[in-house]
Amino acid sequence: MLLSANTQIDVKINNQKLIIEYLLSKGPASRADIAKALNTSKPTISKNVDELIRQNIIVELGKADNQLGKKGTFIDINKEYGYILSIDLSKNSMRLSVNNLTGETKGFQKYSYNIDIEDEHILRSIMDLSKVSKDLILKIIIAYPGVVGHNGQYYLSNLKQKEVKMKGFLDYIKCQFNCEIIVKNDINLALIAEKAYNHQIIKGNLYYISFETGVGSGIMINGQLYEGDRNAAGEVGFIIPSQIKTTTTYKTLEELVSINAILERYKSLTDDEISIETFKKKLLKKEEIAQRLYHEIVETISIAISNVTAILDIENVIIAGAVLNINPSMAMDIQALVNQTSPLKAEIIKSELEQPALKGCIYLGTQEVIKSLIK
Amino acid sequence: MLLSANTQIDVKINNQKLIIEYLLSKGPASRADIAKALNTSKPTISKNVDELIRQNIIVELGKADNQLGKKGTFIDINKEYGYILSIDLSKNSMRLSVNNLTGETKGFQKYSYNIDIEDEHILRSIMDLSKVSKDLILKIIIAYPGVVGHNGQYYLSNLKQKEVKMKGFLDYIKCQFNCEIIVKNDINLALIAEKAYNHQIIKGNLYYISFETGVGSGIMINGQLYEGDRNAAGEVGFIIPSQIKTTTTYKTLEELVSINAILERYKSLTDDEISIETFKKKLLKKEEIAQRLYHEIVETISIAISNVTAILDIENVIIAGAVLNINPSMAMDIQALVNQTSPLKAEIIKSELEQPALKGCIYLGTQEVIKSLIK
Repeated sequence: MLLSANTQIDVKINNQKLIIEYLLSKGPASRADIAKALNTSKPTISKNVDELIRQNIIVELGKADNQLGKKGTFIDINKEYGYILSIDLSKNSMRLSVNNLTGETKGFQKYSYNIDIEDEHILRSIMDLSKVSKDLILKIIIAYPGVVGHNGQYYLSNLKQKEVKMKGFLDYIKCQFNCEIIVKNDINLALIAEKAYNHQIIKGNLYYISFETGVGSGIMINGQLYEGDRNAAGEVGFIIPSQIKTTTTYKTLEELVSINAILERYKSLTDDEISIETFKKKLLKKEEIAQRLYHEIVETISIAISNVTAILDIENVIIAGAVLNINPSMAMDIQALVNQTSPLKAEIIKSELEQPALKGCIYLGTQEVIKSLIK
Repeated sequence: MLLSANTQIDVKINNQKLIIEYLLSKGPASRADIAKALNTSKPTISKNVDELIRQNIIVELGKADNQLGKKGTFIDINKEYGYILSIDLSKNSMRLSVNNLTGETKGFQKYSYNIDIEDEHILRSIMDLSKVSKDLILKIIIAYPGVVGHNGQYYLSNLKQKEVKMKGFLDYIKCQFNCEIIVKNDINLALIAEKAYNHQIIKGNLYYISFETGVGSGIMINGQLYEGDRNAAGEVGFIIPSQIKTTTTYKTLEELVSINAILERYKSLTDDEISIETFKKKLLKKEEIAQRLYHEIVETISIAISNVTAILDIENVIIAGAVLNINPSMAMDIQALVNQTSPLKAEIIKSELEQPALKGCIYLGTQEVIKSLIK
């Protein structure tokens, strides 16, 4: 029960991790540069760098002037030591990407779910395109638009089709690769990407909410993803924003403000079956019904955000998803109403990240590879 | 930046903490008993016990048969080493309690806010009753029914009167004592007490929601209180359960289901000004308006709980507060509706703890004293 003192090992692991992270973020450097930046002795750095070179994780480049003005041998991450395969099932098309350890894309492909392509073909195709051998894939990260259960179950997806695809694809991948496969909720991965690429500065907590064909959210507490008792934290699509019943059940947030919900609501008001692009145009032309529906949507979204921030007391809220494109001022309109309804300040930040779930896969994959490399 | 190895000190602190916690939970024991229970060597335990005896934190009792069947000198916490003063401002009366390190009450007093008694008198009175010298108070813990700001601000209380009382009382106490004073949200303290005394077994997360003159909640993540960006996490009283506006503003949860709200809503339906006891009787007699209002309240509370558990994915929900006493089956009625509206299982547990905020003060105070004793 008492603490065992394996601090020696922890220090070594931590030093090597810091060296790798330094090189990944700053690029090539000399041993002396790293020692200075990490505020430790050159012998300590050299010892650890040598060990990483022996493992082929770090490579020596030529000599060059270092930051101290002396010629030093520059070292860098061996970018081609291994690769990450990222698979994003979150959007209306499946996206696959192979990236090296510095995040460079070796291959990228997109498949619509509507076209029936065999898993074998999809996989062979991305590997061929990337020109990467299968055994150099060190981690596979999959973004799943639903809850990833503790027992390898995939549920609460907004599309049954994807649950099925997921199951089949996962089984096939498991046979083809020896590396670890991590399946994670797409919104949580998007949040990881937002934090890593856009909001590193935010020290406290972050709330991320996405309005797309589904509505989902993710919670980051002290820089760590909070996933809940059953990996289902942030399933805000299921909240009931109002006690108004339809026939026998309550309408959920997803049934009120997702892309599909908006179009269905417009149809029930006008009998017109339109696309989201048409709805956008109608809004621009200030069509009355479209405008009224828009205000209801903004109201529902704003109250949901106010309620979540009242419970979580999170100041920084990132909003994302295609729904936000229906009106250029939507983020501002939400902010204005949140200011009225939230007990404490909540800052609405519109996401600018393209393909956030896929980027989250790549980022998480790199982190996991680094963790597994250093032992 | 790199890890420094002060593990030696950490191990000592941890050992001493474990010894004290063992004695606090199990009562007197021999050094050998402790060594066995903590799975460490007798010399290590003896060395640490001796240090704690020198500091007068632990005292030696007589010899007795220990669990190994041998005569051993029994040791125990020096219960009268110091005391904790707990002040609960959460209820309609102020409660003060002085407790020793094992939680025994040395004195307890209650004052209505309606009677104007000077701070000086209140404090002298509890100290006289407890027969404890002021300089033996090692921690003061205050339960505040509102948000305790990071800059010593007290706000969002449901009673302005308490904000004023708090400010004056705190200033007075600060002059009178040299020890640390911790002011914490009353609901968070209640949650700490629930976890400590009733739900130690729950490994994951806990959500606690209280319906009283105010409505508040607390969140425990992995056994740790989650307090949010501005110490305001759990301020569920401010959520807007429905988009229905009254005149210009939305009704908050507190304005719909707190004790006062229930009575006001009843009054607006019948023009009768009644007490909560009378409302309870009317419900028992199955009066139609009371029943309809009751069902609306259960519905609002259930949807709020379902929404929170959908976002936080917390399975175990403790419900507390006087509102639950209006109907013996209320917890069951809430559970039934939560089962219908929650995407994942949420277990509704009715709190059985008396004076939870005060108990939370005492528990937290003891923990904080132990932490500060071992250096």
